[in-house]
Amino acid sequence: MSSIDINTLKHRLRNFADTREWNQFHSPKNLSMALSVEASEIMEHFQWLTEEQSKDLPQNKLDEVATELADTLLYLIRLADQLDVDLLTAAQEKIELNERKYPVNKARGNAKKYTEFDK
Amino acid sequence: MSSIDINTLKHRLRNFADTREWNQFHSPKNLSMALSVEASEIMEHFQWLTEEQSKDLPQNKLDEVATELADTLLYLIRLADQLDVDLLTAAQEKIELNERKYPVNKARGNAKKYTEFDK
Amino acid sequence: MSSIDINTLKHRLRNFADTREWNQFHSPKNLSMALSVEASEIMEHFQWLTEEQSKDLPQNKLDEVATELADTLLYLIRLADQLDVDLLTAAQEKIELNERKYPVNKARGNAKKYTEFDK
Amino acid sequence: MSSIDINTLKHRLRNFADTREWNQFHSPKNLSMALSVEASEIMEHFQWLTEEQSKDLPQNKLDEVATELADTLLYLIRLADQLDVDLLTAAQEKIELNERKYPVNKARGNAKKYTEFDK
Repeated sequence: MSSIDINTLKHRLRNFADTREWNQFHSPKNLSMALSVEASEIMEHFQWLTEEQSKDLPQNKLDEVATELADTLLYLIRLADQLDVDLLTAAQEKIELNERKYPVNKARGNAKKYTEFDK
Repeated sequence: MSSIDINTLKHRLRNFADTREWNQFHSPKNLSMALSVEASEIMEHFQWLTEEQSKDLPQNKLDEVATELADTLLYLIRLADQLDVDLLTAAQEKIELNERKYPVNKARGNAKKYTEFDK
Repeated sequence: MSSIDINTLKHRLRNFADTREWNQFHSPKNLSMALSVEASEIMEHFQWLTEEQSKDLPQNKLDEVATELADTLLYLIRLADQLDVDLLTAAQEKIELNERKYPVNKARGNAKKYTEFDK
Repeated sequence: MSSIDINTLKHRLRNFADTREWNQFHSPKNLSMALSVEASEIMEHFQWLTEEQSKDLPQNKLDEVATELADTLLYLIRLADQLDVDLLTAAQEKIELNERKYPVNKARGNAKKYTEFDK
């Protein structure tokens, strides 16, 4: 398992941008575009596959997808940093909210949005 | 600073899906769609703002964006887990690759793709 | 100006998919992914440009963007066809709705969403 | 069938933006973001559905999707107009290119990208 963490990556990305004078390009607006483009590049690998096929990628495809997952995480960390948002705290709060919004007895086995329960 | 980490979130999301019997919906294909939708929801907040405005969000907007950042991270962790990809290791390898692809003396102050450097 | 129209393109795309036996891949779900990927490829051209630069693309870039615009239109037509939605009628109805939702006296010069008027 | 066409919609959208003084927001950069966001909103309807379910939407869902398809077309027309690209001509050229790139005898029944054909 990796010993690197989000905080270390954040500082390394900061340094990467600083030394290349790229902060001028790294507005939250631009980073949100780059993040969305990377997430889309992940999806591109899956668009013509069945769900079953998507669970069983050949190794060379899996390596390509792993690189796109990495790009997505790096832009996400960078965007959160530029907005001064603590990404892990926000994620923890969101999963706690989801646990309340989707109680097991109502959500079990269906993909309805919580606003559609009891309809 | 948050004391939670990616690995803890991964296990918590696994448990969340298991208890709700949501693994049937969480194919890599579907998760790649959900991830892309969430990244797009981040971007929606910035689409009509100038770059300068995007650096100075009012607190209520920033809170909304933080929630979308969290959703994006959660789907990214979940997708990597379903593909059995170590997200942090992949990110570390990618940033090392970027450091080689964009040497400071060539990349300083310009946003060209590395393939467009004067070779 | 082009003499081709949406309806002609729709039938040509239908024939294209039929002769290649691609209808098996052209579920609305898959086409919605392909459409989103193409829209993202348009955006990729603009992510590091300023708004001003985006108004003044060099010809070779403009040609590339035109090809992505075309891809996006083709998937959009194909998706609407598979869903049996009349794209032009839907567009006409939506612009009429927008004209009511964004009256000139309230919307002039601001980019607020209509739900935020008078706040 | 609708009697409106792309060219009519283009002029109507131009007038819509002019009277509301929205051209200041309608840079190609911003419009590419709005287009991508709308395409993603289409996809959101399909993310948890199977491919089969996506072919058989209930009428209320289909109406919602039709509205998102319309939004996507409107932003696409508007973006092409701001870039001075003739959308229909570009689409016609692209489908002709696709017909050459994906010859029936090679493409029949498989979704491989043309670069992956056995050469």
